[in-house]
Amino acid sequence: MAVTLTGNSYGKSEVRLVTVRRGADPADRHALKDVTLNVRLEGDFAAAYTQGDNRGVLATDTMKNTVYALAAEHPFDDIEDFGLALTDQLLQADPHIASVRIELAEHLWERIETAGAPHPHAFRRAGTERRTAVVTRCPDTVRVTAGLEDLVVMKTAKSAFEGFPRDLYTTLKETADRLLATALRATWRYSRPDVSNIPFGPLWSEVRRVLLATFADHDSRSVQHTLYAMGEAVLESIAGRDVEEIRLAMPNRHHIPVDLTPFGMENRNEVFVATPEPYGLIEATLRRG
Amino acid sequence: MAVTLTGNSYGKSEVRLVTVRRGADPADRHALKDVTLNVRLEGDFAAAYTQGDNRGVLATDTMKNTVYALAAEHPFDDIEDFGLALTDQLLQADPHIASVRIELAEHLWERIETAGAPHPHAFRRAGTERRTAVVTRCPDTVRVTAGLEDLVVMKTAKSAFEGFPRDLYTTLKETADRLLATALRATWRYSRPDVSNIPFGPLWSEVRRVLLATFADHDSRSVQHTLYAMGEAVLESIAGRDVEEIRLAMPNRHHIPVDLTPFGMENRNEVFVATPEPYGLIEATLRRG
Amino acid sequence: MAVTLTGNSYGKSEVRLVTVRRGADPADRHALKDVTLNVRLEGDFAAAYTQGDNRGVLATDTMKNTVYALAAEHPFDDIEDFGLALTDQLLQADPHIASVRIELAEHLWERIETAGAPHPHAFRRAGTERRTAVVTRCPDTVRVTAGLEDLVVMKTAKSAFEGFPRDLYTTLKETADRLLATALRATWRYSRPDVSNIPFGPLWSEVRRVLLATFADHDSRSVQHTLYAMGEAVLESIAGRDVEEIRLAMPNRHHIPVDLTPFGMENRNEVFVATPEPYGLIEATLRRG
Amino acid sequence: MAVTLTGNSYGKSEVRLVTVRRGADPADRHALKDVTLNVRLEGDFAAAYTQGDNRGVLATDTMKNTVYALAAEHPFDDIEDFGLALTDQLLQADPHIASVRIELAEHLWERIETAGAPHPHAFRRAGTERRTAVVTRCPDTVRVTAGLEDLVVMKTAKSAFEGFPRDLYTTLKETADRLLATALRATWRYSRPDVSNIPFGPLWSEVRRVLLATFADHDSRSVQHTLYAMGEAVLESIAGRDVEEIRLAMPNRHHIPVDLTPFGMENRNEVFVATPEPYGLIEATLRRG
Repeated sequence: MAVTLTGNSYGKSEVRLVTVRRGADPADRHALKDVTLNVRLEGDFAAAYTQGDNRGVLATDTMKNTVYALAAEHPFDDIEDFGLALTDQLLQADPHIASVRIELAEHLWERIETAGAPHPHAFRRAGTERRTAVVTRCPDTVRVTAGLEDLVVMKTAKSAFEGFPRDLYTTLKETADRLLATALRATWRYSRPDVSNIPFGPLWSEVRRVLLATFADHDSRSVQHTLYAMGEAVLESIAGRDVEEIRLAMPNRHHIPVDLTPFGMENRNEVFVATPEPYGLIEATLRRG
Repeated sequence: MAVTLTGNSYGKSEVRLVTVRRGADPADRHALKDVTLNVRLEGDFAAAYTQGDNRGVLATDTMKNTVYALAAEHPFDDIEDFGLALTDQLLQADPHIASVRIELAEHLWERIETAGAPHPHAFRRAGTERRTAVVTRCPDTVRVTAGLEDLVVMKTAKSAFEGFPRDLYTTLKETADRLLATALRATWRYSRPDVSNIPFGPLWSEVRRVLLATFADHDSRSVQHTLYAMGEAVLESIAGRDVEEIRLAMPNRHHIPVDLTPFGMENRNEVFVATPEPYGLIEATLRRG
Repeated sequence: MAVTLTGNSYGKSEVRLVTVRRGADPADRHALKDVTLNVRLEGDFAAAYTQGDNRGVLATDTMKNTVYALAAEHPFDDIEDFGLALTDQLLQADPHIASVRIELAEHLWERIETAGAPHPHAFRRAGTERRTAVVTRCPDTVRVTAGLEDLVVMKTAKSAFEGFPRDLYTTLKETADRLLATALRATWRYSRPDVSNIPFGPLWSEVRRVLLATFADHDSRSVQHTLYAMGEAVLESIAGRDVEEIRLAMPNRHHIPVDLTPFGMENRNEVFVATPEPYGLIEATLRRG
Repeated sequence: MAVTLTGNSYGKSEVRLVTVRRGADPADRHALKDVTLNVRLEGDFAAAYTQGDNRGVLATDTMKNTVYALAAEHPFDDIEDFGLALTDQLLQADPHIASVRIELAEHLWERIETAGAPHPHAFRRAGTERRTAVVTRCPDTVRVTAGLEDLVVMKTAKSAFEGFPRDLYTTLKETADRLLATALRATWRYSRPDVSNIPFGPLWSEVRRVLLATFADHDSRSVQHTLYAMGEAVLESIAGRDVEEIRLAMPNRHHIPVDLTPFGMENRNEVFVATPEPYGLIEATLRRG
């Protein structure tokens, strides 16, 4: 019987890169970058699988070394720029490689405030939120996706869930006033043909600002409703002119009002139990035009 | 500017179901099933997103209830069978639903041995390994994928990595004898048109047996080489007759020989440091014919 | 042979409490509290262990219910105050109970900024850092410990490690300039006899401010050296007048400079690999007087 | 104001050691050991804290190197033996060291079965369970504690919880037949004065066997009741002659029967939801005599 290798890829995951740039500005402040990278290659690697021929297999250890060497030569402000440089370098590393995909997740640090001012070289991790990017490059094309993940938000007003269908298995009560909490993941694809010229940093900040503001202000009838409003607001914002498509994923981190009636008390929508599982998961993709 | 909703799905994740069947066999032994389910629906849900109209939104809480009610009515041995029944039920729950996808992960328990015999109603969790299945159903088609994940294995002989290309950034030494460890994830798709008739349990056990035996015995020149051999052995086995395609993912959990020369000692390939990150990740898909 | 029960305790762990207070201030802003609690009882429970006599065993489910009922009756700003009220209530719940210990961990949320102002009812999780407290109460005494954990900080200057002893197994190089990163855990015990009168909130903020400022500014010769300086600064601060003892634990999250010499490059202390394990762990307790 | 350093310790945590012994037996089978170690030192380290004087601070990196060098020189079957050798070596490493504490956790691997026989050099991780040991050594004394952790077990019969007190906040129903699941942690201290002569491996296996058998067979009125029976059975077993004291911790991993009455169905104690939090936590210490 014949067996065919119909797809394959390989790479190095969870490469941890931290860089410090000293004297990067007049106040002699250090600039800190903290990034986790996944490198994935596709290409002509069949001989390695079927015959154990390693002559075309760039070692994943070499990929890791390439990341560190490039980081020394190529200081960066925006992870998208580093991804662009890295895909460029790796695509040339071996003729068997047909495409390179780099996933980057930046762990965010804020300067510690001392004596009312940001400290030049002391930092505090700003949370679980990560700025993300994916750069995919073939010889002819390059694509940049930016994003964020694990941005945990909650609203305690302007969230309802009513009017859903009721069948034999429906016990959920309608509510005009519930807590709405999620760990937002968003990714958006840039539409400009010339990726070398995109102001990645300002655009990322603006998209994030619009997402947060819309989440906060929206009069939500469901997670779906708010998710769509958030994506729509991004595409209609100034930053959205450069965004072709945005994907949003919002797990519904349920907060259940505690039934206090057994204790002769009323819960005026003030006391909740946060539940880790199960959770609703709502996803959608919105596109301009 | 126009905004289009180009894709969406929603559902309930991490539904935890445990069932006990009593007196299921002559020895009055209890049968225990422990499963985590993700339910995903696709369909005509645009009004919920764009207008906050919930009339077509089956509540994710109702999906959860449906799981438990069905489990009471429909005791099962194989998670594939439960996935088939559940997709069938949910597809009929609301006319807006176009397709249902159920992911199931079974946590495995073994009977505790007491007095040299398996205990009728006491169990020990058998490890981190999970048996998995995905059932996807539209009105016209149903597809079943089986699998396993987090099957952690290591071989301490018959693993080499030599002959790979060396460039400016290559520092990895060639080795004819290394440790090879991974947390295997495998998924395979059944080819029979009539899914109601597949002996899911015996097939799963046989695929797993072939994967383990091939991993153990293979003379490995790389992870790629062994991954392919494992997939090929499955497709060529008796179980493979029912398998159309198999996907394997093998993270390379590196074990690095410790350099003892600074202490005036030699490491005869006996002392290693296990490293959690970074790790190589090798993936491929093999198909019959 | 005689067997003696020499110690025992039981309780409920990971009780998740979220409360919302509406209209708590003139701007009609909502106040959000998000706390995880562990409840532990000690007392005369031997009959439950040795004879299966449950007449003195307050169900852990009842403990959980008590948390939620009390939260509805007793809105709080500071977790220490809620711990004081809860220990008081539980100590009276059953005559078998001799002492109650409540551990509280507050997950911190910040208001989302929209239109340049903090939003009245939308929040962003402020990070992994948690504010902690432990309240322990017997009929005659009550003790309050406050703290914080998982406050992740890094300094990129003013950190050295030199002059340590070198033996046969020492390969670590001396360095006058390294990165110093940690996930700080601190707990401090209040010395006032009347715990009902302590301004827990302002004291917590002030201790945290002193810890961060000292970490940032200290000229560190080792983790031990900086840890001591941080504890000393707290005890010598204004907040320290109310603090009898402080314990600090600082895991050393190593950031290793990457050796770029194989690539013909020099690492000017700019490129590092962050390593999750192993890690140094430094702990100490400092006391006034 | 005077500040006093009242306690301190430091060390290296999460040192990952994997060793392979080749030709360890007639069948040329490899022996695999996979251990995580924490090293803690106490001693005269005040100058490091208060003055930044590192002359007495054995680097934690040196501790790690010592682990690997000793593992090469001192192959071991039982982690207790390696802990004894390591504490001995480290206590002599520097005169400032007054005591050494080593915590060891062994990750267990089983041989893969191929062709009906255990494979000589291929292994499967046996689960989340870990064999543990703590060795503490001062110049005059040494103490060995053995144990296990994360041994996940469940019984589906012979478990009740009835007769507990009911107060205003009690809503839990009494039950004569519930699921009882836990992740057992046990530690026991050996009583022999001469620790060099204890058959650690057989004793560990026997204690584990007694714990499992008692859990399985016990007619449980509560977690407390079963925990005590398990500890008592160990102390009264043959292995118990060498055990002075045993501590057990049993989190109650609640499995809640699903209320099916809203769906017009009855739950005959067959369908449960597994809940991760909150959980009861029961702990006790039993001693001989």
